[in-house]
Amino acid sequence: MLNPQRFFDPNPEIREIAYDLYLTVKDLPLISPHGHVDPRLLAENQPFPDPTELIIIPDHYVYRLLYSQGIPLESLGIPVQDGSAVETDHRKIWQIFADHFYLFAGTPTGIWLSHEFSEVFGITEKLNSANAMQIYDQLQEKLRSSEFLPRRLFERFKIEVLTTTDAASDSLEHHQKIRGSGWKGRVIPCFRPDAVIDIQRSDWRKEIETLSQVAGIEIHSFKNFLRALENRREFFKTMDAVSTDQGVTTPYTHELSSSEAESIFQQALKGKSTEKDAAQFIAHMLMEMARMSIDDGLVMQIHPGSYRNHNRLIFEKFGRDRGCDIPLQTEYTCNLRELLNKFGNDRRFTLVVFTLDESTYSRELAPLAGHYPALKLGAPWWFHDSLEGMIRFRERVTETASIYNTVGFTDDTRAFPSIPARHDLSRRMDANYLARLVARHIIDLEDANRMIRALAYELAKKTYKL
Amino acid sequence: MLNPQRFFDPNPEIREIAYDLYLTVKDLPLISPHGHVDPRLLAENQPFPDPTELIIIPDHYVYRLLYSQGIPLESLGIPVQDGSAVETDHRKIWQIFADHFYLFAGTPTGIWLSHEFSEVFGITEKLNSANAMQIYDQLQEKLRSSEFLPRRLFERFKIEVLTTTDAASDSLEHHQKIRGSGWKGRVIPCFRPDAVIDIQRSDWRKEIETLSQVAGIEIHSFKNFLRALENRREFFKTMDAVSTDQGVTTPYTHELSSSEAESIFQQALKGKSTEKDAAQFIAHMLMEMARMSIDDGLVMQIHPGSYRNHNRLIFEKFGRDRGCDIPLQTEYTCNLRELLNKFGNDRRFTLVVFTLDESTYSRELAPLAGHYPALKLGAPWWFHDSLEGMIRFRERVTETASIYNTVGFTDDTRAFPSIPARHDLSRRMDANYLARLVARHIIDLEDANRMIRALAYELAKKTYKL
Amino acid sequence: MLNPQRFFDPNPEIREIAYDLYLTVKDLPLISPHGHVDPRLLAENQPFPDPTELIIIPDHYVYRLLYSQGIPLESLGIPVQDGSAVETDHRKIWQIFADHFYLFAGTPTGIWLSHEFSEVFGITEKLNSANAMQIYDQLQEKLRSSEFLPRRLFERFKIEVLTTTDAASDSLEHHQKIRGSGWKGRVIPCFRPDAVIDIQRSDWRKEIETLSQVAGIEIHSFKNFLRALENRREFFKTMDAVSTDQGVTTPYTHELSSSEAESIFQQALKGKSTEKDAAQFIAHMLMEMARMSIDDGLVMQIHPGSYRNHNRLIFEKFGRDRGCDIPLQTEYTCNLRELLNKFGNDRRFTLVVFTLDESTYSRELAPLAGHYPALKLGAPWWFHDSLEGMIRFRERVTETASIYNTVGFTDDTRAFPSIPARHDLSRRMDANYLARLVARHIIDLEDANRMIRALAYELAKKTYKL
Repeated sequence: MLNPQRFFDPNPEIREIAYDLYLTVKDLPLISPHGHVDPRLLAENQPFPDPTELIIIPDHYVYRLLYSQGIPLESLGIPVQDGSAVETDHRKIWQIFADHFYLFAGTPTGIWLSHEFSEVFGITEKLNSANAMQIYDQLQEKLRSSEFLPRRLFERFKIEVLTTTDAASDSLEHHQKIRGSGWKGRVIPCFRPDAVIDIQRSDWRKEIETLSQVAGIEIHSFKNFLRALENRREFFKTMDAVSTDQGVTTPYTHELSSSEAESIFQQALKGKSTEKDAAQFIAHMLMEMARMSIDDGLVMQIHPGSYRNHNRLIFEKFGRDRGCDIPLQTEYTCNLRELLNKFGNDRRFTLVVFTLDESTYSRELAPLAGHYPALKLGAPWWFHDSLEGMIRFRERVTETASIYNTVGFTDDTRAFPSIPARHDLSRRMDANYLARLVARHIIDLEDANRMIRALAYELAKKTYKL
Repeated sequence: MLNPQRFFDPNPEIREIAYDLYLTVKDLPLISPHGHVDPRLLAENQPFPDPTELIIIPDHYVYRLLYSQGIPLESLGIPVQDGSAVETDHRKIWQIFADHFYLFAGTPTGIWLSHEFSEVFGITEKLNSANAMQIYDQLQEKLRSSEFLPRRLFERFKIEVLTTTDAASDSLEHHQKIRGSGWKGRVIPCFRPDAVIDIQRSDWRKEIETLSQVAGIEIHSFKNFLRALENRREFFKTMDAVSTDQGVTTPYTHELSSSEAESIFQQALKGKSTEKDAAQFIAHMLMEMARMSIDDGLVMQIHPGSYRNHNRLIFEKFGRDRGCDIPLQTEYTCNLRELLNKFGNDRRFTLVVFTLDESTYSRELAPLAGHYPALKLGAPWWFHDSLEGMIRFRERVTETASIYNTVGFTDDTRAFPSIPARHDLSRRMDANYLARLVARHIIDLEDANRMIRALAYELAKKTYKL
Repeated sequence: MLNPQRFFDPNPEIREIAYDLYLTVKDLPLISPHGHVDPRLLAENQPFPDPTELIIIPDHYVYRLLYSQGIPLESLGIPVQDGSAVETDHRKIWQIFADHFYLFAGTPTGIWLSHEFSEVFGITEKLNSANAMQIYDQLQEKLRSSEFLPRRLFERFKIEVLTTTDAASDSLEHHQKIRGSGWKGRVIPCFRPDAVIDIQRSDWRKEIETLSQVAGIEIHSFKNFLRALENRREFFKTMDAVSTDQGVTTPYTHELSSSEAESIFQQALKGKSTEKDAAQFIAHMLMEMARMSIDDGLVMQIHPGSYRNHNRLIFEKFGRDRGCDIPLQTEYTCNLRELLNKFGNDRRFTLVVFTLDESTYSRELAPLAGHYPALKLGAPWWFHDSLEGMIRFRERVTETASIYNTVGFTDDTRAFPSIPARHDLSRRMDANYLARLVARHIIDLEDANRMIRALAYELAKKTYKL
């Protein structure tokens, strides 16, 4: 069903070169250094319950588009926070999905789903209203077989390493369980301290308490807060973590004096912090996290520019991560300056920056990454890890920063079975990008062969020290 | 003269698919849900006076480019507000235009004019200095024939519905005349209340008086102002209006308390409003207009981001809409939040947003439209309803919002005889966009056939409830 | 080694048209109206010392990318301000460069270097670790021959005119020497007063003193400052200057009253200016420079939007222009309004605007240039005079402003032997752009032939009155 030369430029010269390049990396193992798969999945290794539970309910890429066309989230079985009833008939939900599957034509979600159906599950028909139940049954049958257990899929997908995202105070019990199980799959945590850094979150003090407990450090001062974080980073390192991750509204960085930081922290403990305090505190914590990265070697990642929970109604009813985070204009040149001036020339340090604002690719990020040794550019991300989004990223970034200041592909997904689809799309788009350069005599085949391998595998492995 | 496969990608595979797709929609009726044709044209149905009056004098797309190359507007016959003399020899103006016709190579205006000359008037030569007078004569002769009367052209163009733009206090006399004439052409008004909403306009109080009179409501309070607007919206609905339209500098939305709104309104009545008042008032009126749309079902349109009358000299001498409105950076994520939070989840509501800031396509507008049920994206507009502009719009919007959260094509023109050219260009570019997806195996022909019909006809019809 | 049809679209139809168009301009003389070649080079006409001195040490495009990959600037022989030791073995530096030459694959620097090696020096192998020393020797041998003296290269490159960039107080001694030498090469200065306009520079008062001396005017008042500038502009004109150039952080323009300007100037003389003063002063000086341009006919150029010396460590150790200037978001519509309102309708005035913010191409700059007679758009510049950068510029600008409100190509380089490579790339990309229009039947061959000549030669010549 899937054309082997799909996504390549229809020009025969480009298509042929692209296909040849793609074939050299098609079967390389997958490095997934940044994502949101729940480690419990691989710790417990239980069968996925059913197609709706696998594909629709956990994936806000899927249901946000259905919602935009007027389909209530309740009718898609998305759980409501207060526990009130939502649709529980998963066949009925699947039918709605199939009835609207045409909406995904031309979207990356459409591409990933087609790949998943065809390559993972062997479904050869396009989903539609008529065949919805039949495909549901086919999927259901597969899901019941041991071949489709999470660990078997992990191996079949040739995942060399899968990084999850974990709160600062997470016990990493699932990671521990995976290790203890004797299974050889490499699943490693990533240290994400957002909940204890954003002093304006309503649950911040509770988070600090939990952190205090797991770190075994009483957090009554900013100094102790830093010690607790350092302690947790060490713990994450013992669990093979190689990186940290922070989501911030803006990438503003600024070093406070010890007394300023302490004072904001004390106010926050009293529940008295202001929005401005919080912004200053995050700016300072980015400096602290960079400092810690130089000390302990963890790669630092930041991804600014999302207005979280833009739709209050959905947030209040359904909670976070429900497809209503919306990108914001983002400024890097001034905001990152203080951090880059202090740490950016240090070759021990690696800072990977992601963006949701494509206008910064050629204007700010490529010039910064093409100069500072510490700075590397994360792959096009979230709304932009799409076919056209990947083309725009390479075209805007490479001429100034070269491919060697980028970090290869990041699938960033919570949809486990979509991982191969995402890497395959990326490998195809990079092959096509390079083939267009070869066909125009901008690079030669020797260059292209080196570059496709870097993009598909080596850059991620090297950047994240895997 | 015009190549039947013009504008398509030269790759034979894409070109063939694009042409086939285009042929399926080429002859569909034209839905023109948003434009600026003067209804008097179709009410009076008089012959167009001459080629210069038809093509140059009313079209600031044409004369702005001539002006940028140093040709005075007076020499092109653009009327001066104080009535002082301008060039009246229309042949002489036409000669200047022909001498500089090469300037339009590669511009959408060049494309539209070529289409108009060839397909509407049967002129087969390219306009140049040498043939200027001969082509003038050919055009003049056609314009005298009854075949070229506005209503005959309307029918020949297969316009299914043409929406005009009309002030809140407009009597809609021309629309009434068209209805009364027995002619079957569907020409409907759109409610545009800018003049009574922008309290900083020098003629605002006069506009309020006129509104007061036509609505039969004394407008001494904000409450009555709203009643007058509601009254006019009802009247527009009796004249078959389906939509409203607002031009705003920024899309900032914010609900004032009744007393705040009343207080600003009272100050304005006294001629004492400030710029800040005006901004707050517009932000509030966007909320009120959304509320009214839910009540009466009119589709709400906004198009922010134009710095009107940027060139004061031209504005003072020649008035508004003379080609010197310049786009501004525009922010949607924060600015639209209040409106979308209050009304964006309501499926009875439709808000169509246009932009002049292409950097917002993938960053803000597609993510917003790919989530909120009420929000739909207007076609690329004004400077961007061009060949490359349309490609950028589809490539940046579709992957996140899908085509189904866009509203098809909007010609937005005051140049009546250019309407078919504009729709034809749009249909070609959409066909080509889809053909590129098919040739790369991103969608299949079944998808493409459904999508081209949606883009060329159905989405506009459905969104605007036509 | 270099494919004659390199950089063109691989579609055979486009490639053939592009190549034909390119051949019509390939051998036209080079107009270089804006650049940074040191005039001493052509005044003294001494042999270039060695390949490393020619290609690596003076070119921050080259060493910034090496630096970004962790190679210390000292090891590349970049001189340190305090005179402490850096690598002096130029063969060793060349070897490092060759070892990392693969980094430049897909960058414009890679393209220019390949052209330079092959077309200027006849090197037919791709540089790599193994052949580094052999190529060094080949280059060294050439550099010793009289054929490779700067003036011989100037003639071989067919440079019709080369503009340098010179401080307001520059004696233009090298230009004088060139004139006095009897050599016919046309090398002209450009008046760049940044050092005397930025009142916040630490060396500003020293610069004012120097200006005072060379102008023979005691600068104790703002009025005299203006007189000194006018005096120097006159002097530059006697040396055949046709233009001025200003680098500014933002393009904000604003006219101060005489007393405001005088007051800021007096404070600055006392060393007491603030950042805000400096911003106001620059805004005012842009107005003054425009006024002077109308008086004396010099074309005014501005290029806003670079955060200079972003990396303080590099700045303090190595000085200015070391590859750490980073672009900033830039706003033109509001910022240029005051200047354009006062001078933009004056046909005696020419203002050429460059940008580093590509998001302004279609949103602000093309609409402004497509209206104001005085405004023309400089070529894509610095990070954007690349293959994809040039495509983006033409695609975003032409539809609104036409090619005729742009000024052709600007090489903007300090790397003298890269000049032909840069013009050749530009001519190829413009030919390809036009060929894509022809192949899609947007323009015809007659248009394309006129346009390619304008872009490659005539627009620069005309705009800069050369």
